[in-house]
Amino acid sequence: MTVGVKRVGAATFRLDGVYVAASGTAVGDKEWQGPLGQYFDLHWTPPPDSKSFEQEERDLLRRSQDVALAKAGLDWEAVDVVLGGDLLDQLVTTSFAGREHGRPLLGLFAACATFTAGLATGSLLVAGAGAQTVVVSAVSHHFAAERQFRYPVELGNQRYPTASWTATAAGSTILDHKPHPLRVEAVTIGRVVDWGQKDPNDYGSAMAPAAVDTILRHLQATGQTPAAFDAIFTGDLGEFGRRLALRLLNEQTGEDWSQRLDDCGRILYDRKRQDVHNGASGAGCSAAVFGGYLSARLDAGAWHRLLLVATGALLSPTSSQQGESIPGIAHAVAVVAEGG
Amino acid sequence: MTVGVKRVGAATFRLDGVYVAASGTAVGDKEWQGPLGQYFDLHWTPPPDSKSFEQEERDLLRRSQDVALAKAGLDWEAVDVVLGGDLLDQLVTTSFAGREHGRPLLGLFAACATFTAGLATGSLLVAGAGAQTVVVSAVSHHFAAERQFRYPVELGNQRYPTASWTATAAGSTILDHKPHPLRVEAVTIGRVVDWGQKDPNDYGSAMAPAAVDTILRHLQATGQTPAAFDAIFTGDLGEFGRRLALRLLNEQTGEDWSQRLDDCGRILYDRKRQDVHNGASGAGCSAAVFGGYLSARLDAGAWHRLLLVATGALLSPTSSQQGESIPGIAHAVAVVAEGG
Repeated sequence: MTVGVKRVGAATFRLDGVYVAASGTAVGDKEWQGPLGQYFDLHWTPPPDSKSFEQEERDLLRRSQDVALAKAGLDWEAVDVVLGGDLLDQLVTTSFAGREHGRPLLGLFAACATFTAGLATGSLLVAGAGAQTVVVSAVSHHFAAERQFRYPVELGNQRYPTASWTATAAGSTILDHKPHPLRVEAVTIGRVVDWGQKDPNDYGSAMAPAAVDTILRHLQATGQTPAAFDAIFTGDLGEFGRRLALRLLNEQTGEDWSQRLDDCGRILYDRKRQDVHNGASGAGCSAAVFGGYLSARLDAGAWHRLLLVATGALLSPTSSQQGESIPGIAHAVAVVAEGG
Repeated sequence: MTVGVKRVGAATFRLDGVYVAASGTAVGDKEWQGPLGQYFDLHWTPPPDSKSFEQEERDLLRRSQDVALAKAGLDWEAVDVVLGGDLLDQLVTTSFAGREHGRPLLGLFAACATFTAGLATGSLLVAGAGAQTVVVSAVSHHFAAERQFRYPVELGNQRYPTASWTATAAGSTILDHKPHPLRVEAVTIGRVVDWGQKDPNDYGSAMAPAAVDTILRHLQATGQTPAAFDAIFTGDLGEFGRRLALRLLNEQTGEDWSQRLDDCGRILYDRKRQDVHNGASGAGCSAAVFGGYLSARLDAGAWHRLLLVATGALLSPTSSQQGESIPGIAHAVAVVAEGG
């Protein structure tokens, strides 16, 4: 198989010879008990000597990386570059994990779109630059995020109906150029889109326009129709964000996307039984759902081609306090099952 | 000129056909009045309607991007991807600027090493993936950083002798594959190195081991000796960090690096007259010093080959409060003046 890249749009690239060697996923109790629990590799629980949520988040990340490497039969020495990120200020989870694995590290921030930012960039490094083995990771920890972005956890604030539940989840995916069942076929780097939404309890609506922008740009640049994909999964728009994305896509294309478009955050939990309102969010959400459920669907032959479009809300507590609206971004990665 | 990439080490790549089309720099009063003032494009002052330091930081970034585009004779529509970052939580400066330019955006976080993280990744996209025009930016704003990382500005805390002064500076560099005088020859993505230093008032010592690691890895992978470079500039080790880096390099190589190694943060200010102790720091420091002074030296033929090794301290206020040490990282970019 030739390894190569072809630019087919401003930031859309078709790739040859980039494969998913393995993915590793680790999730917390709530995610393990949810409808996708059986698809994850590890039921993560905090280490007994855990001193902080932030330290736990690093452990969660490392566990997902270790299981991915074990599944691929690789050790850290084989890794050229690690790409990834998290939600914590100054990306401390990813950086501090980096001092343990000691491999070259590119830290990325795209909020909850970080996983596909990493998959896209990592795929380009493998296809275009000759990187041999790349690890792409994203992680989030419910309580570490909650106390940084919202309120002290102990406060027990009532949650808004449109609010999402930050997942305690990590996903790590290893890319290389040796043939494996799943291949990265094309990627699109997203643009920042901001329609002026200011409600920090409704990220889904803030991110939906960015998801729609990236999906349509990806299809246009690759010359594909929605029918080319058996499934298109956004990152964590949740129930309400998906409704808005569907409306926009239906309006802009004149087609019915309802059977084609779903969302990782919408399916991670049983929204009623698990009391999560809009669904799941967090940088680890799409990473774990891709490494677990979505990869399993592709591996099983249920789908042939998937478009994963993780979505990020690019706000900070400071920007919200200063009255700014919430910009969104979404990066797209098309994965094809070569087996069928 | 052929465009291409060759992997010569785990995360070291030799590039063909990647050029610096232009750089744009914008700096505040203190930087403008310093010894490098004449090399910068814009003396930036806060807009009259400025409402916050954070809003000012975005203006500073945009000004550097606009001047880079103007110097290259390009408009935003010509840009395939913007890569870059800043120091603020959740990268809000870079993201919010993104909603104005509307171009595909890859947000990077490597603290004050962000500029070379972007230059390296952007160069790989141009050389390996066929990206046409890439903008790489990094920015910092003294007061926005000061109140986020240290103390309320109004407190007027006394500064430690080893403390650096976060520069109010932005640098944007445009890369493409059309021949220009400056060419990106090779890049190395850095590893996280942490020697256990915990003093948040001495980033220079925390970052020096990472700088040394990346410099030596780059030389080894490219088969070069230090003599291949007329100048090797770290990012913002400052006076004390440079001393430590020199000691480590001298010890590990048995050579005298004192005439070869200098530091962007050490030369941005007149350290005595401008009362900045260890020197300058901030993501914008190495970006502006590269776009201004270092590029000018290469353009003037004073140097033929430069290794720029921006350095980042990967801590957060939370990680320091939790008693963690300060991991460092450094990414290297070799730039050659083709004219001579």
